Amino acid sequence: MSITGQSLIGAAGSNSSGAVFQAVDPSLGKAIAPDFHTADEGDIERACALAQAAFDTYRETSQEMRACFLEAIAQQILDLGDELITRAMAESGLPRARLEGERGRTVGQLRLFAAVLREGSWNDARIDPALPERQPLPRIDLRLRNIAIGPVAVFGASNFPLAFSVAGGDTAAALAAGCPVVVKAHPAHPGTSELVGHAVQRAVAACNFPEGVFSLLTGIGNELGVSLVQNQHIQAVGFTGSRQGGLALMKVAAARSQPIPVYAEMSSINPTYLLPAALATRAETIARNFVDSVTMGAGQFCTNPGLVLGLAGADFEHFAQLAGKELTQRGAATMLAAGIHAAYQRGVATLAAQAGVRQLGQAAMADGCQAAPALFAASAATFLSNPVLNAEVFGPVSLLVACANEAELMQVTEHLEGQLTATLQMDEADKPLVRRLLPLLERKVGRILANGFPTGVEVSHAMVHGGPFPATSDSRSTSVGSAAIYRFLRPVSYQNLAQDLLPEALQDANPLAIWQRRDGQLTR
Amino acid sequence: MSITGQSLIGAAGSNSSGAVFQAVDPSLGKAIAPDFHTADEGDIERACALAQAAFDTYRETSQEMRACFLEAIAQQILDLGDELITRAMAESGLPRARLEGERGRTVGQLRLFAAVLREGSWNDARIDPALPERQPLPRIDLRLRNIAIGPVAVFGASNFPLAFSVAGGDTAAALAAGCPVVVKAHPAHPGTSELVGHAVQRAVAACNFPEGVFSLLTGIGNELGVSLVQNQHIQAVGFTGSRQGGLALMKVAAARSQPIPVYAEMSSINPTYLLPAALATRAETIARNFVDSVTMGAGQFCTNPGLVLGLAGADFEHFAQLAGKELTQRGAATMLAAGIHAAYQRGVATLAAQAGVRQLGQAAMADGCQAAPALFAASAATFLSNPVLNAEVFGPVSLLVACANEAELMQVTEHLEGQLTATLQMDEADKPLVRRLLPLLERKVGRILANGFPTGVEVSHAMVHGGPFPATSDSRSTSVGSAAIYRFLRPVSYQNLAQDLLPEALQDANPLAIWQRRDGQLTR
Repeated sequence: MSITGQSLIGAAGSNSSGAVFQAVDPSLGKAIAPDFHTADEGDIERACALAQAAFDTYRETSQEMRACFLEAIAQQILDLGDELITRAMAESGLPRARLEGERGRTVGQLRLFAAVLREGSWNDARIDPALPERQPLPRIDLRLRNIAIGPVAVFGASNFPLAFSVAGGDTAAALAAGCPVVVKAHPAHPGTSELVGHAVQRAVAACNFPEGVFSLLTGIGNELGVSLVQNQHIQAVGFTGSRQGGLALMKVAAARSQPIPVYAEMSSINPTYLLPAALATRAETIARNFVDSVTMGAGQFCTNPGLVLGLAGADFEHFAQLAGKELTQRGAATMLAAGIHAAYQRGVATLAAQAGVRQLGQAAMADGCQAAPALFAASAATFLSNPVLNAEVFGPVSLLVACANEAELMQVTEHLEGQLTATLQMDEADKPLVRRLLPLLERKVGRILANGFPTGVEVSHAMVHGGPFPATSDSRSTSVGSAAIYRFLRPVSYQNLAQDLLPEALQDANPLAIWQRRDGQLTR
Repeated sequence: MSITGQSLIGAAGSNSSGAVFQAVDPSLGKAIAPDFHTADEGDIERACALAQAAFDTYRETSQEMRACFLEAIAQQILDLGDELITRAMAESGLPRARLEGERGRTVGQLRLFAAVLREGSWNDARIDPALPERQPLPRIDLRLRNIAIGPVAVFGASNFPLAFSVAGGDTAAALAAGCPVVVKAHPAHPGTSELVGHAVQRAVAACNFPEGVFSLLTGIGNELGVSLVQNQHIQAVGFTGSRQGGLALMKVAAARSQPIPVYAEMSSINPTYLLPAALATRAETIARNFVDSVTMGAGQFCTNPGLVLGLAGADFEHFAQLAGKELTQRGAATMLAAGIHAAYQRGVATLAAQAGVRQLGQAAMADGCQAAPALFAASAATFLSNPVLNAEVFGPVSLLVACANEAELMQVTEHLEGQLTATLQMDEADKPLVRRLLPLLERKVGRILANGFPTGVEVSHAMVHGGPFPATSDSRSTSVGSAAIYRFLRPVSYQNLAQDLLPEALQDANPLAIWQRRDGQLTR
């Protein structure tokens, strides 16, 4: 099925009555057919009501059935073939290799959650057997498992048209948990979204699941997202985007008559620490790899290294020169959309205009939607006194901040808002300083990495893509990796229920062969 | 040390400048010495700043040290001896046996968390080893553990002066997680609170922990609690109390420049289902046990069975007569405080005045702070059309609702707000109906129990004392049992860090001998 411009409400398409819009090829500045119809209130209500109607059936499908479903989605996405890649290239301006890689990541993510389901620890099965002889009172048999929280609203992100979008991380985690999903497609890539939406629809049908397990709402304007979060059937929200957008959804969710959790990943400047011993011996390598990281994907990563911290002196100044020179040689790159490009241009101009900020390098300017990478420097005193320098500028730009001494480095660290990541460029001799930094960094960020760059986010069991506010709305969670399934689960206890009334995860016979915690001890 | 009327700010007492108040003996209606001084803004700021200053040190104490600390608190509470029990009796009107039992529960709770710490699964240690040969990109070593979320504000509850108060469940869970705690004492039992506060202070000193690990703020008025939740150092809130109070704190927390999680346990009417086969054979036993549960502790339990559902007919009517007669024979009991008693009297009068509600029984009225148990009945149609009947009346009262048929029973269930518990009185022949009810109940409640009553809440691994809004503010969590530790933890990832920089929980040598998840598989 080709792209129709419709929202997908369960198994059907919808010719909505809302505003019409088109996708835009950012590298050409030209609209692409077909027209897309913004979902209206009726679409939203139908999608959410179908999700609610599907919920009790879907959440009690076996973990094996849901694992097969996730694998079917993965295969359906692969079966879309090159049409998906070429459409995503046109809508995002991202190159083929990046999108093919992102497709692999998306498929891998779905398969990871299939494995997580089969392993079964997500149930958190706990059994406290009866102790009829206990004094002064007997203990009654008590068992706990996790169940799905309810229908989930997922907002597609602009910067990952596949991996953080229609069948991206939040969708995979929510479907794995047993939650029906209503996706709001990002309007920058509606055609890509619809193609992936069809793939999910086909997997739902192939698995004979109720159609309400998945819907896709297309549209422009903020009202669609607000209405979706306000819908009474929605029980949790996954969002990746701007701080402004995330804060707005948090407010909407908190103002409901029944408030619901919002997992919003919002903004981060991802401090990179150039520690003295590493900088003394490897400044050139670090500078080159750093510029690679800043400019990768036109700097459009949540984990882009937007702040570099070090101790003032000849080595740091040398690094600044090297990085500035390296960056100046890099070409401009197409950004995802005209609005994002305009915000980047404004952000760079604002940085350049701040007192005490000097520009170290900028690649050649270019026309249209192209972002020229840029690098700035400031003293720690300037950084500490100017909140503008703490704000994320989304794109290929970074700020170098020289601290007078270790105490000032600590002070700047303490001053930072919550972040997704912190990166340490360090050698053996830097370990004492790293040991003093680590407790601060643990309080400030979700992931601490040594001698790498933050822009690679592995999809695995030990990944935290999250962090304290305002990096995310909820530091207790991750949006990447297998632990993300816990966002969409809640515990329920069963007291004194007969074996044949208990869910399989809690039966003594343990038919799922999963880990069960008996009297506090894991057994299988 | 005897009762001074001071707040406890770290290791010190504070002669605060705020309003002075006294505890009241509800059974006598008389004030009890000494005067208590309401903590002022300076006290709040000092307590929170001390907590923040203690945080990095305290959270990195070993799990063994924190386990010993919790055990020391338990012993210090026992060492308070009878002074604690007599003071709590005077301040709460609760009988000796109940308070001695509650002390045992409080001590047991602290010891349970000590065991949880030593077992170590709370770390959620995850290791994804490096895969240097992986194609197309190598995988870099990645590890995850949970760390403490930050200083926690705990609000003491009126109805459990020991087990949900100064050293109650939230405090034990937060201290176990590695979070310093600032408790706001409930003004109904300030002396009990101070005694327990001294016990915790002594344990902090005995363990050589920083004094900021624990503070206790005493006072009357809402401003104290609001200021505490607004304090920038506080990173999470535990609350047990009224819906009004919980909603107010949720709003305050959401309005902060950095919003924080609130775990508020608020209100629940705890539906009890009298299923046909059980009712036909055991109406008398169920009626007697039901009245025991409704009247236990003057009905002042979050899990009080305030709603009884069944199918209309002779058996249900028979049960209503039995329960009404049984209840009429029960005596009035002293409530915790004059305000709670007045609210109960208003609530019972409001129920009695509703159209379609008839009174089945009420024990003899009594003077002072004494609550006479009461029982009402209404049709399902009345219940469905009148939201007043959905609201919790805190005290020894319950409402019987007869449903015309199974469909109406389902409709009433679907109509319910989120609840802490649902109880099934059932026999073998009721299982088909139970199977149809269970999916609805799982969506509505935190704990489902068969052939018991909800007022006993076991402190163990498989307990969920929680549930969907408005039973609590956050259905993803429990306030009782060992899983409560996860309220106060957040995950952090470490990428490519050297073994000697990693926390012990994540080292390959596994010096803590805890479960580690390697490549998704649990190992030890």
